[in-house]
Amino acid sequence: METKLEQKQEELLEQQLEQLEEALEKEDREKIDELYEHMHPIDLAEAMEEWEEEELERFCGLADDEKLAELLTEADEELQVELAKYLSNSRLLLIFSHMQKDDIVDMLGNLRINRRKQLVDLMRAGDRRVITELLGYDEDSAGGIMTTAYIALDGRLTSADALRKIKEIGPKTELIETIYVLNSQKQLVGTADLRDILIAQDTDTLRSLADENVICVEPETDQEEVSLLVSKYDLNAIPVVNKRKVLLGIVTVDDIIDVILEEHTEDILQMAGVSKEETIDSTIPQSVRRRLPWLCVNLITAFLSSFAIKSFESVIAQVVALSATMTIVTGMGGNAGNQTLSIMIRGIALGEVELKKSWRLVLKEALIGLVDGIFMGVATGFIVFCIYENLYLGIIIFIAMIANQMIAGFCGALIPLIFKALKQDPALASSIFLTAATDILGFFIFLSLASVFLPFLR
Amino acid sequence: METKLEQKQEELLEQQLEQLEEALEKEDREKIDELYEHMHPIDLAEAMEEWEEEELERFCGLADDEKLAELLTEADEELQVELAKYLSNSRLLLIFSHMQKDDIVDMLGNLRINRRKQLVDLMRAGDRRVITELLGYDEDSAGGIMTTAYIALDGRLTSADALRKIKEIGPKTELIETIYVLNSQKQLVGTADLRDILIAQDTDTLRSLADENVICVEPETDQEEVSLLVSKYDLNAIPVVNKRKVLLGIVTVDDIIDVILEEHTEDILQMAGVSKEETIDSTIPQSVRRRLPWLCVNLITAFLSSFAIKSFESVIAQVVALSATMTIVTGMGGNAGNQTLSIMIRGIALGEVELKKSWRLVLKEALIGLVDGIFMGVATGFIVFCIYENLYLGIIIFIAMIANQMIAGFCGALIPLIFKALKQDPALASSIFLTAATDILGFFIFLSLASVFLPFLR
Repeated sequence: METKLEQKQEELLEQQLEQLEEALEKEDREKIDELYEHMHPIDLAEAMEEWEEEELERFCGLADDEKLAELLTEADEELQVELAKYLSNSRLLLIFSHMQKDDIVDMLGNLRINRRKQLVDLMRAGDRRVITELLGYDEDSAGGIMTTAYIALDGRLTSADALRKIKEIGPKTELIETIYVLNSQKQLVGTADLRDILIAQDTDTLRSLADENVICVEPETDQEEVSLLVSKYDLNAIPVVNKRKVLLGIVTVDDIIDVILEEHTEDILQMAGVSKEETIDSTIPQSVRRRLPWLCVNLITAFLSSFAIKSFESVIAQVVALSATMTIVTGMGGNAGNQTLSIMIRGIALGEVELKKSWRLVLKEALIGLVDGIFMGVATGFIVFCIYENLYLGIIIFIAMIANQMIAGFCGALIPLIFKALKQDPALASSIFLTAATDILGFFIFLSLASVFLPFLR
Repeated sequence: METKLEQKQEELLEQQLEQLEEALEKEDREKIDELYEHMHPIDLAEAMEEWEEEELERFCGLADDEKLAELLTEADEELQVELAKYLSNSRLLLIFSHMQKDDIVDMLGNLRINRRKQLVDLMRAGDRRVITELLGYDEDSAGGIMTTAYIALDGRLTSADALRKIKEIGPKTELIETIYVLNSQKQLVGTADLRDILIAQDTDTLRSLADENVICVEPETDQEEVSLLVSKYDLNAIPVVNKRKVLLGIVTVDDIIDVILEEHTEDILQMAGVSKEETIDSTIPQSVRRRLPWLCVNLITAFLSSFAIKSFESVIAQVVALSATMTIVTGMGGNAGNQTLSIMIRGIALGEVELKKSWRLVLKEALIGLVDGIFMGVATGFIVFCIYENLYLGIIIFIAMIANQMIAGFCGALIPLIFKALKQDPALASSIFLTAATDILGFFIFLSLASVFLPFLR
């Protein structure tokens, strides 16, 4: 529900954006600065996605490095690439000096390899080392999303000294509430809460204030795993350490939210056989290109069920009622299977499914299919018996319904587990594979039963 | 991917839990305290879900109020109710004094109304007022998830005075990084970053340090809307204000993550027609009870498509090949429609779909269906022509495929939009309604065409 407050906030933003475009037209740098002061960079970045090339070029000429740094941080891939066109390498390096290392790495990852190399080569040695290291991690791993802008202090410092250092480093970090406490070997030994440092005696050591139960991850840890830990333990950031427990970086909660949103988008799209790159803003050719491959897979499975039916053509020719009733069995199977599928995919995403114990889930889903199948089978069998006035047709559809509901539960649980065991995304086109199973087997079981009972059906 | 570090962390936890259960058996309070010191409450709370009643009772007797406060905060609904059984009202009030107000409200919401009333009546007047107010908000609104444990200070304070107050209040708040700045009428006028306060001149006023661009929400704002704002603006908390801009509370990012996870679960489950209450831990009777209603709806739609086929029985009797080929048209339609559905539902959840402009999306999806339909139709038509050696059958399936792919795109986009316009969850059983449309219309179009071209098909 959109409240009045939100509507007002949106209207204000629209006015600001209009005025900004006017000021840009007039090259009124002062007005731009003033308007920018009252806006959030993300709002401007989103608006800029719709701007013309010349507006973007003019903006790059008029805005200072700090503004461009904020905007590049918030910009999506396309806008980053577009803006980079109007910025020289030396200008970009100046802008980078106002950006966090992890954001620079994200941006570099979107540029063409030549430009990326040029920029990295032009960096100061210290920055180059950090950036190269960060570029080395898989972008979906903890290393790929971590930032190096945190406060880590030696545990032997007193709280007074620590506070002095925090005041000094604080403005450059992403997080100030949690201070990472290191031992003399630079290993992470605990975290100290800024609250505790603020109220501590001046002579207390940081080590004495630190909480030693630190949940950490390694740079190779998958981002989904990282997000589960952060949400489970309500962390505002999670430290990334190497095998010797040396602190390499932290992943902050705002990046974790992005991970969660991204992973969920992947799940819901991939389940239906849509590429995770597609959004509602994709053009028609993009969408077609991304969906056709899975539709082709689907076409193959559709022909397989067609062949299953075709092999019983002589039976159907004798009892045409079969063609109208067989689709009830498969339709119900497809939807029941999708119920199981959605429960499983969500459970896996929330880290609630252990592969070792997962045979129980498969069994449970098959049993649910049995129970649902009995209910649905009785109802369907009775209705079909009434319509076609044939008891055997009713019995056949009753049995086929139970069998196919069990298949739906079994396959709905098994398909995502197989993908997980193969280290693939459990949602990958699972809906297409599932309906293939419930269609092919559903038709086959129902029509096989019909051919056995054929004399009683005619 | 689970790294070695995580495995080690898990093994350690298992050991701790075993030792804790032993200590509990021996009623060794000291050992329990020591073990607890090295654990995270959420880990213990999760383990306690599996404990026997007598273990829980013994734990309630041995643990101090602070521990129980932490555990009740982390416990799920069931465990909260279970633990409350072994705690007297007066003990619970002592425990509440160690809990945040929003967590108390959550817990009260899970107790039976009598107990809830007793507890509220026993509270001190000040607490009772806050709790009653919080209990009054819808649990899915900003008011229902906000906390009152924040720092709000008068803007006329100097930074030195502010820092003194922060040291005093800080330990009791959920958030310390952001200080909410009020004017003399207690209205929210800005937020100040603790970093800036730390490095400010002692005589700077808080108002001069504050950022006045504050994104806020009202208590009635839907939690999904709140989560979109927090993730868009990378906030660590969002203030909740009333119409006069008086600060009522804040929603912190850890609660936002819970909202996002909850909303995702709802979307993916409801799309397939599963109650949002179901988890992979639900028992078989629970699951059956929650899924059967939608399966019944599905049974009705399955019979509707069956009737569509039945009305063409005489045509099918003459050309049995139709019964094996018609399911290709509907199967492809169902899956293409689910592709569209998943894009739409995700777009709506991410706040990217505006109802006013959404006719464009419906049109776009229908056009994608047209293009995909032409590709799939040509392939299918050609294969069917080769198998059945009948050109007209190939042409009919080509046309029906295009029509049904367009219907799939059209309905896949329209169904969630209709639910949204009706202020229902856009995902609600959308998959069941969609396959109803693609099945019924798909069969009807294909078989109608066949009856028109019947002379050429025999």
